[in-house]
Amino acid sequence: MKSVTILGATGSVGTSTLDLVEREPDRFRVVALTANCDVARLAAAAIRTRAEFAVVADEQCLPELQAALAGTGVRAGGGPDAIAEAAASGADWTMGAIVGCAGLKPVLSAIEQGGTVVIANKEPLVSAGDVILRAAARSGATLLPADSEHNAIFQCFDAARPEGVRRIILTCSGGPFRDWTTDQMRGVTLEQAVKHPNWSMGAKISVDSATMMNKGLELIEAARLFPIAPDRIEIVIHAQSVIHSLVDYVDGSVLAQLGPPDMRTPIAHTLAWPDRMATPMAPLDLVGIGRLDFAAPDPVRFPALRLAREALDAGGARPAILNAANEVAVEAFLNRRIRFLEIAAIVEDTLIRYDPAAPDSVDAVLAIDAEARRLASERVKDCVV
Amino acid sequence: MKSVTILGATGSVGTSTLDLVEREPDRFRVVALTANCDVARLAAAAIRTRAEFAVVADEQCLPELQAALAGTGVRAGGGPDAIAEAAASGADWTMGAIVGCAGLKPVLSAIEQGGTVVIANKEPLVSAGDVILRAAARSGATLLPADSEHNAIFQCFDAARPEGVRRIILTCSGGPFRDWTTDQMRGVTLEQAVKHPNWSMGAKISVDSATMMNKGLELIEAARLFPIAPDRIEIVIHAQSVIHSLVDYVDGSVLAQLGPPDMRTPIAHTLAWPDRMATPMAPLDLVGIGRLDFAAPDPVRFPALRLAREALDAGGARPAILNAANEVAVEAFLNRRIRFLEIAAIVEDTLIRYDPAAPDSVDAVLAIDAEARRLASERVKDCVV
Repeated sequence: MKSVTILGATGSVGTSTLDLVEREPDRFRVVALTANCDVARLAAAAIRTRAEFAVVADEQCLPELQAALAGTGVRAGGGPDAIAEAAASGADWTMGAIVGCAGLKPVLSAIEQGGTVVIANKEPLVSAGDVILRAAARSGATLLPADSEHNAIFQCFDAARPEGVRRIILTCSGGPFRDWTTDQMRGVTLEQAVKHPNWSMGAKISVDSATMMNKGLELIEAARLFPIAPDRIEIVIHAQSVIHSLVDYVDGSVLAQLGPPDMRTPIAHTLAWPDRMATPMAPLDLVGIGRLDFAAPDPVRFPALRLAREALDAGGARPAILNAANEVAVEAFLNRRIRFLEIAAIVEDTLIRYDPAAPDSVDAVLAIDAEARRLASERVKDCVV
Repeated sequence: MKSVTILGATGSVGTSTLDLVEREPDRFRVVALTANCDVARLAAAAIRTRAEFAVVADEQCLPELQAALAGTGVRAGGGPDAIAEAAASGADWTMGAIVGCAGLKPVLSAIEQGGTVVIANKEPLVSAGDVILRAAARSGATLLPADSEHNAIFQCFDAARPEGVRRIILTCSGGPFRDWTTDQMRGVTLEQAVKHPNWSMGAKISVDSATMMNKGLELIEAARLFPIAPDRIEIVIHAQSVIHSLVDYVDGSVLAQLGPPDMRTPIAHTLAWPDRMATPMAPLDLVGIGRLDFAAPDPVRFPALRLAREALDAGGARPAILNAANEVAVEAFLNRRIRFLEIAAIVEDTLIRYDPAAPDSVDAVLAIDAEARRLASERVKDCVV
């Protein structure tokens, strides 16, 4: 029986993970579940799964959680120390699905105790990549990627023989403006930008998909996760998002993972790995899909791709700055304070203005993240929509 | 260093294998090479690779071979016993690329001594499947498939955990008459039938591709090679032949192998497995290819698909009869003695007229093959073009 802890159990990844865990009660045992402050959902899940420990990050929500769990046998906790305790609960398998930089320290705690840690947000690998990978090397923890592209690469990459790999090919839907000129993109509205063609996603990641910054961040994550030179990672536009990514071998073989646009497939892969577990989705229907298209990405029309590649090549603090400035810029766009093309411009401007030394701890990453956000916010104020 | 024997070293698969072996002289050592009677090519290859032993199947060609190899240090042999000796030469890796039923006994000899045996023609698995698989189970030999579809499945199929596999999806170009009606196919000429859209192949296999019997035979081979129920093996028409086949897992993941239409990729995979070795072809260019299409096959317009599925389900001698009758019918078509649609009709007629017990030895397979050929030839005589 595999013991499971879910950090961020009430968000979309956490809910999908719970859905899978609850389908096989003889296979998985829940140790700890955490949430920010969604007490109703957290308590219900903890009771259903007979979790040992349920934690809210926001300490103000603890009394409500304690009330909801009274008499159920589930222990309640609140605040950063309780989150750290949940992360270090000794589970065989930990899902790191806390959104944003708040997830960094808990994921690091989980990694430090070894076991399998699933990375479901980009901060651990983009902003704190070196710190996280060093910790994993020290503890012997296994890092598994939950997002569809990196999970696809993981399934295709022969980690025991990396010298056989020639290229990683990261696929990218291209977003809603794939075929738009820069001039056309000047007038992009918020409503146009949040409409992703294939996946049902939150507003932030939909905008990242529209600017292709999402793919830029994934490029950086791929370079962290897999033992391959960054210039061997290519991006290919694949409108249908059916092939989630590919690995090209020196003999000419290209292995690919395809699947439905449902996060439960990669999550189930990490949960059962190296075995497999069933998910309830309909099997992939290639005949129904009919055709798959491929095209080259354009780093001129989509400068986020160029900025991400440059940040990856330069390393150090650059990916953390890229990510922080992008978050600020996208939020400003979502609040209708800046135009679509200004997102990448603000990120580039922040990268130009700020060049600290490489961070050597999560605290250093958090400080860089905060300063980059401050600088990007300053720049947002200069923009007039 | 891996010791290598090539049974059928002068045909297209044998030549491609030699090309790869000769690229890495520090990695491969040639033990034995065989040919039917192409002495010039066999002797040259044996001398270049410093093979220990070169054999012609046709004993009449032995004096010529002896003359060509005089003073080179390569031992010459001729006839069935010498072929058997070459097959049982104790190589780590043996390529079984002798065309037709003539390859059955040599491949069986190679399997009986263990080691890795690569299957490059269909008779061992289609006609003599049970016999071959029992021999491999006894000796512990590893069977690796060299044709692109089964090699693709091998690369994607987690043999250690077959319970995780839901389906095998065998791709099929559909051949030149993919979109033709039965009425249109009535008038198919030889010239139209031998024009394969993607691969440069011999006349026989081009016709098999046009009737889709090639895919029917591959369906039977897949069912022999992989631990999965036959009704879990699907065929999908994929016009571009870029995806060589796919494996669908219970979690929704579908793994695929893609590659250029060059036999050297799957052969290199089997040569280096579980490692990889470089091949000289250009990497797959998905952007250049642009699009991949999928459609459902039609067992009504292409009765060979139905006949193969029925032969697989019935088992025993049926696949051997299917293959033998098809060879006779295709040869008659190539000699302009029957019409295109009569190929499947002759196969079906032979299957109806002949129903022997399941063969339990290669000799029994050869007897069934001979009788099926005799019956199919009889039927060819009744046809008037």
